[in-house]
Amino acid sequence: MDMISPEITLLLDKYLHKIKAVGIHHEKIAELRRLLNHGTNGQPGLRFAAEGMWSQQKLLSAGLTIHSFFFCPDCAYSLEAVQLAEKMIHAAGEVYLISKKVLEKLGDRDKPDGFLSISEMPIITAQELILPDNAMVMVLDGLESPGNIGTILRSCDGAGVDAVLICNSKVRLTHPKLIKASMGAAFVVPLVCFAAAEHCVEWLVSRGYEIYLADSSAEDSYTTVIYRRCNKALVAGSERYGLSEAWNRTRAGIRKVSIPMHGICDSLNVGIAASILIYEISTKCSKG
Amino acid sequence: MDMISPEITLLLDKYLHKIKAVGIHHEKIAELRRLLNHGTNGQPGLRFAAEGMWSQQKLLSAGLTIHSFFFCPDCAYSLEAVQLAEKMIHAAGEVYLISKKVLEKLGDRDKPDGFLSISEMPIITAQELILPDNAMVMVLDGLESPGNIGTILRSCDGAGVDAVLICNSKVRLTHPKLIKASMGAAFVVPLVCFAAAEHCVEWLVSRGYEIYLADSSAEDSYTTVIYRRCNKALVAGSERYGLSEAWNRTRAGIRKVSIPMHGICDSLNVGIAASILIYEISTKCSKG
Repeated sequence: MDMISPEITLLLDKYLHKIKAVGIHHEKIAELRRLLNHGTNGQPGLRFAAEGMWSQQKLLSAGLTIHSFFFCPDCAYSLEAVQLAEKMIHAAGEVYLISKKVLEKLGDRDKPDGFLSISEMPIITAQELILPDNAMVMVLDGLESPGNIGTILRSCDGAGVDAVLICNSKVRLTHPKLIKASMGAAFVVPLVCFAAAEHCVEWLVSRGYEIYLADSSAEDSYTTVIYRRCNKALVAGSERYGLSEAWNRTRAGIRKVSIPMHGICDSLNVGIAASILIYEISTKCSKG
Repeated sequence: MDMISPEITLLLDKYLHKIKAVGIHHEKIAELRRLLNHGTNGQPGLRFAAEGMWSQQKLLSAGLTIHSFFFCPDCAYSLEAVQLAEKMIHAAGEVYLISKKVLEKLGDRDKPDGFLSISEMPIITAQELILPDNAMVMVLDGLESPGNIGTILRSCDGAGVDAVLICNSKVRLTHPKLIKASMGAAFVVPLVCFAAAEHCVEWLVSRGYEIYLADSSAEDSYTTVIYRRCNKALVAGSERYGLSEAWNRTRAGIRKVSIPMHGICDSLNVGIAASILIYEISTKCSKG
């Protein structure tokens, strides 16, 4: 079914001046492809590729800077698709039309819906971060799996976390698996990167944060800890190497909390552990 | 470094009668390869491949039936490896020696440690299941991602769940990603499969289970529900299609519980949601 609906024809006519049809060898398609495949050649930067109508809706509602919108009119069958395409044409800096053949060579979806874009991740500096009183932040120290980081961002969005601080990052925050697993949360949860754990510890301590370290060997179970209404940070460490030494060196108010393990496994998946703890803290503090 | 230690030489001499050296074209290697790559040709069955010393230790301590042990003596450098190899030679029905070259063509590890095996998943029938009073079971209805199922098994092991009931399974329980994500929990948590959700509902209802459905649209937050000390089941549904209709059709004591979502995402990852809820139920019931 390669028929274009009259609505699409009208839309394309209306925005003719802004739209350019491109083939597989165009430099923009090359950039899109590289970002989709998580190529590390070229500038790492904060650009990332998003695929599918669902992602575009999240990008729009998060108000992200959309550099380029790639649209395959042959795949847009619904009125919803036409309406979303118009919003994307408005929002994007550049708009490219692609054929079904080009679309199929990109991305990893079974049935691509004709929507792709390149946007910029809204990563901010610690100076730019504006936090409320009794802030709740999540710290990810040296995490190695982009899927885990994305899932944790989704949980942080759900639990109402005010910011996610990332240190010793082994993963590009624009990694397609991270973006996908976050289900849009990566676009809206304020993200701040620290080069080293030391800087993050210092930042938290100087602002009087209570720091909770997720530590599977800690004596205190997370269910017995009293979480006070104050600025607080939950820190989760690398799947393989645990937490940086910097957390142990500070003398500020640090508490280690564990999740009881009743079976043969020593610990939970880091994404699961971080989510259980952040929901516990979020629930207990909103009640207290 | 292809030198075999004297300890390994002694070990191989001692078990000469039980050990057979095989090459890449041997039928056993073909079976191992198929299981490692999750091939679906041939009998599906309950056989699975486990890779690495860590997995073999879990297999041994769980007391699983180990059909074949594949050992590459050139990769075993430590005394620990020699000791584990002896235990595996004892436990396994058949033992095969493989070269480093063959080892490298198998599996997906960067640095394979020379240990591989084929074992049988201990899946039981509902009739064989022996449960304590005030049992806590997890039901997985139609889950599609082997990684999610494995992670949930790990959380169930941690939370002290008595059994995991699986219905409408879209995934082989011997899928390598499931085994890997479970970190050994798949070997020890009692697993029962039901062909359809109806049978599982019936089984639970006839045994007086209180049933909690994880449902992101439910009015009651999981934190406000009173979890009584009784037989109870937590049900998590498919990532895409949610729960089977069968759960809504029963008039028995069913409660829907949700996890508050304060951000832009409608729900959490199913592995995260199931883990948060099962830990909440486990914690509240052990206290009450």
